[in-house]
Formats: sequence, structure tokens, C-alpha cells
Amino acid sequence: MPFQFEILARDSRTQARLGRIITPHGQLTTPVFMPVGTQASVKTVTPEELLDCHVEIVLANTYHLYLRPTHTLIRDLGGLHHFMHWQRPILTDSGGFQVYSLAGLRKLSEEGVLFQSHLNGSRHMLTPEKAVEIQQTLGSDIAMVLDECVPYPASYDYALASQELTTRWARRAKAAHRCAEQALFGIVQGGMYADLREKSARELVDLDFDGYALGGFSVGETKQLMGDLIEQTAACLPEEKPRYLMGVGTPADLLRCVKLGVDMFDCVMPTRNARNGCLFTRQGRLIIKNARYAQDIRPIDSQCGCYTCQHYSRAYLRHLFVSEEILGLRLNTIHNLRFYTDIIHMIRAAIGEGRLDMLTVEAITGEAGLEASA
Amino acid sequence: MPFQFEILARDSRTQARLGRIITPHGQLTTPVFMPVGTQASVKTVTPEELLDCHVEIVLANTYHLYLRPTHTLIRDLGGLHHFMHWQRPILTDSGGFQVYSLAGLRKLSEEGVLFQSHLNGSRHMLTPEKAVEIQQTLGSDIAMVLDECVPYPASYDYALASQELTTRWARRAKAAHRCAEQALFGIVQGGMYADLREKSARELVDLDFDGYALGGFSVGETKQLMGDLIEQTAACLPEEKPRYLMGVGTPADLLRCVKLGVDMFDCVMPTRNARNGCLFTRQGRLIIKNARYAQDIRPIDSQCGCYTCQHYSRAYLRHLFVSEEILGLRLNTIHNLRFYTDIIHMIRAAIGEGRLDMLTVEAITGEAGLEASA
Repeated sequence: MPFQFEILARDSRTQARLGRIITPHGQLTTPVFMPVGTQASVKTVTPEELLDCHVEIVLANTYHLYLRPTHTLIRDLGGLHHFMHWQRPILTDSGGFQVYSLAGLRKLSEEGVLFQSHLNGSRHMLTPEKAVEIQQTLGSDIAMVLDECVPYPASYDYALASQELTTRWARRAKAAHRCAEQALFGIVQGGMYADLREKSARELVDLDFDGYALGGFSVGETKQLMGDLIEQTAACLPEEKPRYLMGVGTPADLLRCVKLGVDMFDCVMPTRNARNGCLFTRQGRLIIKNARYAQDIRPIDSQCGCYTCQHYSRAYLRHLFVSEEILGLRLNTIHNLRFYTDIIHMIRAAIGEGRLDMLTVEAITGEAGLEASA
Repeated sequence: MPFQFEILARDSRTQARLGRIITPHGQLTTPVFMPVGTQASVKTVTPEELLDCHVEIVLANTYHLYLRPTHTLIRDLGGLHHFMHWQRPILTDSGGFQVYSLAGLRKLSEEGVLFQSHLNGSRHMLTPEKAVEIQQTLGSDIAMVLDECVPYPASYDYALASQELTTRWARRAKAAHRCAEQALFGIVQGGMYADLREKSARELVDLDFDGYALGGFSVGETKQLMGDLIEQTAACLPEEKPRYLMGVGTPADLLRCVKLGVDMFDCVMPTRNARNGCLFTRQGRLIIKNARYAQDIRPIDSQCGCYTCQHYSRAYLRHLFVSEEILGLRLNTIHNLRFYTDIIHMIRAAIGEGRLDMLTVEAITGEAGLEASA
């Protein structure tokens, strides 16, 4: 079954949509949050635990898998789903973002980007065609075009030239893409300039992708500016295609950006925070190493139905964390992932019942929501 | 239900016994292998996964839990079983072995052993009475007396004095033990001197413990010497009490020592080896990081029924290991634990069917068994 997207319900007072994505590996509901499984593993947890956490789709990083164990090896072993024992949908990124953030010695040209592996210094050329080829070889359900990630802040001239390069790369990616089973998403860039974001969106829409991502956000700009740009960009995108905000974000970001019309999110925050001992609850964040939890018999969040909250006290989780026990990282991860999917479920329910505008950051995170208005 | 032990079957050609231990937290069959959960966690895995691996009892380390989070805190939180979400039997050691192997600045006296915490240098006095008190406070099902662990090699005079101190400490521990629900085991010491081992065993048997451990083995002596001493010591112990060989060992050790009449074992080997990427199979050990497994689609062991072998290839496990993914440590641990319990099940079946003498090290480990005759 090739990629499909349909809108099931719209919120009347916001731009939010409730939708369904169908992929060769099953369907999922939007809005959706995608945990990050960088190296073909969502750190510390099994696929069965992801399902218990109500995860419907995961993201894997093309850059990492291309370098190790290599996309061709994964293909020879039966494809990424089989390799990592995850039979539900997978989205892969293009590898571009990691080239900019992790690799050594980058050289950007019209052709693509030359970089050195962060693992062993070996040189590689990533082009729009190569990024498509790698992702097709991995066998993900949704692939992303290669884009240039604009630094922040960037001058108007830089952002313009970069946006136009991203469009030319998107055209080449689209031309190179040969797999009807795999969706290909374009990525709107343009830095923090509303007119460039709009220009980028219109050019990409002309190329007719299966979905559109908003890239280059959460790089240091204010929440207000991010929100304004997302709203304006979303207005330039077709209603009938999914919109994916890359690398975002906090629970508050999810709520705010769904209201602006975003359907898909990914972020390392729930998993990375978990490993750092920062746990989300409906009463705010909890730093598990704090001495105040040493004798606390309560679960992380008494309203949470996750495996961790069903069986373990804050005191035990604190003990595991300060004792550097690996099990603690995993129990924390299970909780944070479930917290994120619970938020997404609350958001979906509110859209379905036409009351999303009444759902506040404070209601879902226990935090004042100041961040939301910052 | 207080502690009970009954022998269900005896092997006619060896000293092996098939037995049942009943504790306040349920029963288990012997011979049994106990994974080590040092800090109230068998590293990387949940209690549910332990049950999936057919684990029936775990060992926890009194030294670690006394220092952190403290035995009194664990008591206040509902006891060790509740704390770590493991409702089956738990054996705790006395803390002595870790004082000798981990703590700083030890000072041994008739009274006990003064030591400094390896965590923060704080000074503590561990006496036979204190070791009992800590274990009663933790609420384990089986407690161990404090012993002196004789260095290896040790002179006859040193070993004699140490053995006699261990007996005096055992008498004090027995007098201090006030919990009918908790079993208390004595520990036979005596270094590598058969007459001291025999003397130790007879003195402890006079004190009438619920079970008898063999301590101070696997410290550098030959397998032949270890086997001879175990055989001679076991002959001095009452048939109707369980025998526990502490800190041993390899799969070959388990088979050999069951034949000598040992009922219980604990060792970090399956879990520690797993985290180091050394996996047990019926065809010998497998070092998962080796390049030869990079494209190997087979499970670790095609005859293994563990979760890991049901769902993951050697290639994926190698990828996780070289990529330093935490999930790999856990999948490896699940496999090695299941391998150990599978071996124990093979041994039990062979005893029940009166053919234990026919079961060879090579049959259960795929290794030549040279180690066994060394």
C-alpha cells in the first residue's frame, strides 16, 4: 500500500487537523510524535516497549546508518524494519542535518556536500540523489530530501541563496526518487525570513511532494518568531498533505504547533532527557536525582499508565540513577515516551471534540506555559 | 511460609541432587543459578525479563545496598522485593566479600571489620551481628553469615586462624538472627586446606544453619583442587541441607560442581560477559564485536528460545555493540541469562532421568571441556 494521507477532522478555532497516514508498514494517526532511533535503535528500549508506549512511527538517521553499518548492509540483511525488529512505519531524514552538526570538514557545493565521517574521518559526498538512494536502500516508509540547514542567525542574502539551493536540490531529489512504496517529503527552508519561507513553500509545492517539512526551526529563535513563521508557512502548504516540523520539541511546542497546523514531530527530547534524569509529569518536570525523591514512594506521575509508573517508585528510580544503573535510563525513557504519546492523544481527542483551543500548556504539562508566550 | 528444602531425586552415579527450596516469596528448584543484582537491579533487565529468562531467584549485595540507598531506606519503602519489583526469592550476601574486594582501608579484628566506603570514604564497622541486622532489614529470603575471605594463596596458620574466626563469627551471627521467615546460611572457609575445610564444615554443622555455602573458591586455584575440596567438603555437610557454591562460575563449573553435590550458584559471569559482548552458545562462546558477524543473519544460538534469539540477528547485535547502543547490552544479557538457566534445566532433567554422568561440558557449551579437566 503506497503512502496516503487523509484528514479526518478539523478544529474550527485553530488550524489543527486530525489525520491518518497509510504506509506500507501500516497506518498511523496524526498529529503524531516520532521518537528518534538514530542508529536503528530508540536508545535503551525494544520495539515491543515502543508499542506499549503507544509509539506509531520512529525516525532513523540516514547519516549514522550510512556510515555504520551502511545502508547496503542493512538492505542485504532484509531492510531497516527487519534489521531493527520494528514492523511499523519508519521515517528517515536525509542525513543533511547530521552532516552540518556532527561531521568534520564540510564543503558545500551545487553538487552536494563533501564531509568527513565523525567516526573515522573518511570522506563522503552527499548529494540529493545520494540521499534518496540511501533512504530507498534502507527501505524507510517516508524519505526526506537533502536540504541545506541555514545557520542562525543568517543574512537575508545567505538565506535566499540557501533557500534557492534547497529548491534545486529538492527538484533533483524528486527526479531521483524511484520508489512508489516510499513517500518523499520536501523541506521548507528560508531562515527566519517570512518571504523566503513563503517562496520556499511555493516552489516545493510546485514540485508536488507527498508531504512538506518545516526545517531550520528551534535553532535559537524566539518561540514567537517560530510560531509566526510556521503559521505563515503552513498557510502556503496544501491542506491535503501532511506537515512535519523537524526536530521540535517540548510538550508546549507540540500543542502550540498543532494549533498552527502541524501534523508530525520528532525530537530527541523525551529520550535524551530521560537518560539525563529529567522526567515529564502532569505537574511539571522532575529531576530524579534530587535528594527530595530519595524516600518518595510515589510513581513519577500518578496519572501515568506506563510500565515504569505501574511498578516503580521515584525512590527506586533515583537510586538507579545515582547508582548509574542502566535499567534506570530505560525506565525513564519508557515514561517520557509515554508522556509524549499521552499528550498527543490528549491533543487528538481535543481536535476530535472541537475543543483544542481550550487545551492549555498548563493542562498537559503542569507548567505555567510562560514558555508558550515567550 | 518459612524456609524449607527437600530433595526430590538423587543421581545414582554422582553426588547430584534435584531439590526444592521453599521461601516466603515462593519456591524454586535446585540446582539453581542466581543472577547477581548488586544494586537491587540485575543490570539492564527488568524482573519480567528475568522471569522470561526462567530466573527463579536473584542475589543482591548487602555491602552496596547498605551504603546506598541504605537498608533502612529500603525497609521504609516496603522492603527489597517491593523496592526492586521482584516478588520471587532473594538471597543477600553478608557484605564481607565486597568489603575485602571494594572498600578502602580495612581493619580486621575479633569484633568485625572496619572499612571505608568506596563511594565516599565514610567509615563503617561490619560485625557478624550487623551483617545479620542489615539483611533482616532488607528482608531477603536467604541471608549469609559474615565470614573472612582468605586471600589466595594463604599459609596454613593464616587459614587456620581465619577459619576459626569465621566459625566464631558464624556463632554470633546465628545468635543474632531473629527472623524465622529468613533462612541463614553458614559459609565454609579454610582456604585450600582440606582438613581446615572439613573442620570448618563440622563446626558450622554443629551450629545448625538452614544451608551451607562454600566460600573462597574460584580465587586462582586449579579446577582440580577446587573440585577435590568441594567434594571433600560436601561429604561433611548434611544431605538434607542445600549447598551453595559462592561466586561460581562458568557453565562447565556448574555441571562439574552439581555432580559434586552443589545445589546453588551465583556469578556475575553471564551478565558481565554480556555487557562485554561475550555471548554463550551451544557451539562455544561468541565475541559479538568480531567483524565475522557483521553480515551474519543468524541468531546468537539457533537452539535458544530467548527474546533476543527470536528477534535479532548477530549482525544487528554487533551493530548495537560497536555503536555503543545500550539496547545491545540488554539483549546480550537476556541471552546469556537464558543460556545459564537452559544449562541448569538440562542438568535438572539429566538428574531426574538418572543420566547426569552422561552429560558433558561439550554437550552443553560446545567447548571441548578441557577446562573441566584442567
